[in-house]
Amino acid sequence: MESIRVFAPATVANVACGFDIFGFAVASPGDEVVLTRSETPGVRITDIIGDEGRLPREASRNTAGISIQKYLQHIGQPELGFEMVLNKQMPLGSGLGSSAASAVAGVFAANELLGRPLTPLQLLPFAMEGERIACGSAHADNVGPSLLGGFVVVRSYNPLDVVRIQTPASLYCTLVHPDIEVNTKDARFILKNEVSLKNTIIQMGNVAGLIAGLMTPDYDLISRSLVDVIIEPVRSILIPEFNEVKQAALDAGALGCSISGSGPSMFALSRDADVAERIGAAMQQAFLAVGITSEAYVSEINQQGPKVLA
Amino acid sequence: MESIRVFAPATVANVACGFDIFGFAVASPGDEVVLTRSETPGVRITDIIGDEGRLPREASRNTAGISIQKYLQHIGQPELGFEMVLNKQMPLGSGLGSSAASAVAGVFAANELLGRPLTPLQLLPFAMEGERIACGSAHADNVGPSLLGGFVVVRSYNPLDVVRIQTPASLYCTLVHPDIEVNTKDARFILKNEVSLKNTIIQMGNVAGLIAGLMTPDYDLISRSLVDVIIEPVRSILIPEFNEVKQAALDAGALGCSISGSGPSMFALSRDADVAERIGAAMQQAFLAVGITSEAYVSEINQQGPKVLA
Repeated sequence: MESIRVFAPATVANVACGFDIFGFAVASPGDEVVLTRSETPGVRITDIIGDEGRLPREASRNTAGISIQKYLQHIGQPELGFEMVLNKQMPLGSGLGSSAASAVAGVFAANELLGRPLTPLQLLPFAMEGERIACGSAHADNVGPSLLGGFVVVRSYNPLDVVRIQTPASLYCTLVHPDIEVNTKDARFILKNEVSLKNTIIQMGNVAGLIAGLMTPDYDLISRSLVDVIIEPVRSILIPEFNEVKQAALDAGALGCSISGSGPSMFALSRDADVAERIGAAMQQAFLAVGITSEAYVSEINQQGPKVLA
Repeated sequence: MESIRVFAPATVANVACGFDIFGFAVASPGDEVVLTRSETPGVRITDIIGDEGRLPREASRNTAGISIQKYLQHIGQPELGFEMVLNKQMPLGSGLGSSAASAVAGVFAANELLGRPLTPLQLLPFAMEGERIACGSAHADNVGPSLLGGFVVVRSYNPLDVVRIQTPASLYCTLVHPDIEVNTKDARFILKNEVSLKNTIIQMGNVAGLIAGLMTPDYDLISRSLVDVIIEPVRSILIPEFNEVKQAALDAGALGCSISGSGPSMFALSRDADVAERIGAAMQQAFLAVGITSEAYVSEINQQGPKVLA
């Protein structure tokens, strides 16, 4: 096999209460990579589609490129040559795990082309290197679920310990991306370094409740647990109409609604595909009330992670 | 029925990572209440055994007494008369949920005598009133599991939301109570009111991991998650030889070991009864190395909660 086309999914990180530890994959949107073996050593990006020229073309400065480079170093074959076309199928700076999806698609494609020397879980550290250059920290709450599929807990970073959580068969995600931009670094910068013990206890209760709700499954418990008292009150000020959009989602039947990753996208969970569609329409309408256009995506939780396209 | 004898179990609150939100019940020790209907209105304590005269005999100042009084007010029958004998079968100020077990035994007994007008879950707020006068705050992480049995998450206090978590059939608790005393109010007073965001994230990861580990079940995940970076580093200074005793438990095969409630008792979890016994001996030996005698208790997780004795 000399060439391969791989899709890696967008992801919702944090999931209300689980800042830096929870994330799940969706069916769409996502990014595509076409990776081709080359005689010339090293990783070269021949084209990036859909980024309006904003992403670095230099492989070592691109999330997908650096992930493949780190992977090749690890398996002891840094001299191998690859040409990559990156097809960005979702907005940048959206809170949908755009950089993670590119990194995962890239490193997954390379591993497939080389006959799968590593398992998906073993690819995680290399995809995290992509996050490091994109966001300033090698966080795993987007690359984890994009790579492994499903709902993922990053239990620990040191040592890295990623746990996949079973989710109910009927659990739908509505994603709405307003056409505004929030920089991930800014979104992290405004957070306080200290949390009250009181709020830590409240948040831990919701973290425990959400995991128990997903695994039981118990939709009411999921709903009661989709509450973030630490991050959302701070970051939501970066999203115009946040409270109105959230309320519109809840009124339309959402189990819960919060910021996707560092925003500005917002996600809502529900237990029915039709309800999930209605939630999307209601959220878009609420944004539109102040003149903000948006894109909506509805899907089940993506249990597969990356996939090789025909 | 005019008289009833009820046992309510001791409990391990916090369970390493779950400060104020996690607790589970053990088979022993526990407290017993004998409650008898009386012609004289109100709750009277006729005897308390095993407290060396340290607990208040006045019903409204006693955890079991106040719980029954609040319960009778709630069901609209404050004029009913009861005489209570409280048999304390575990040390006071031990971190084993002594006050909770008394409160639960009392209110459970009253509800049984009156033909069960309320469910166990509905009794919770009255048992919490016992905690309020014993510890200064109406926490639920001891009374919850003592009343409901099993492993309990207090997801929220406002509104009160208590969730029972399934635990593996083979999960054993070793409890060791050193013959020293730590006041619950002191143990709470030394805690800081602020937690770093970094430690909050680490603790949330362990909270999620412990719930997932218990429900899967996955003993390795349980073991990796039994880590407390917020409370244990502060409170353990109140327990002589804490680090040595903990290490002795881990060396003897414990999945994890930490402070039971506010201490000074320490608990360890394991997946085998023989190992649990060996852990107890090793922990007692480590305390004895500095001249501290102790009591050890080994039991499975108590799934039943309070029980009526013949």
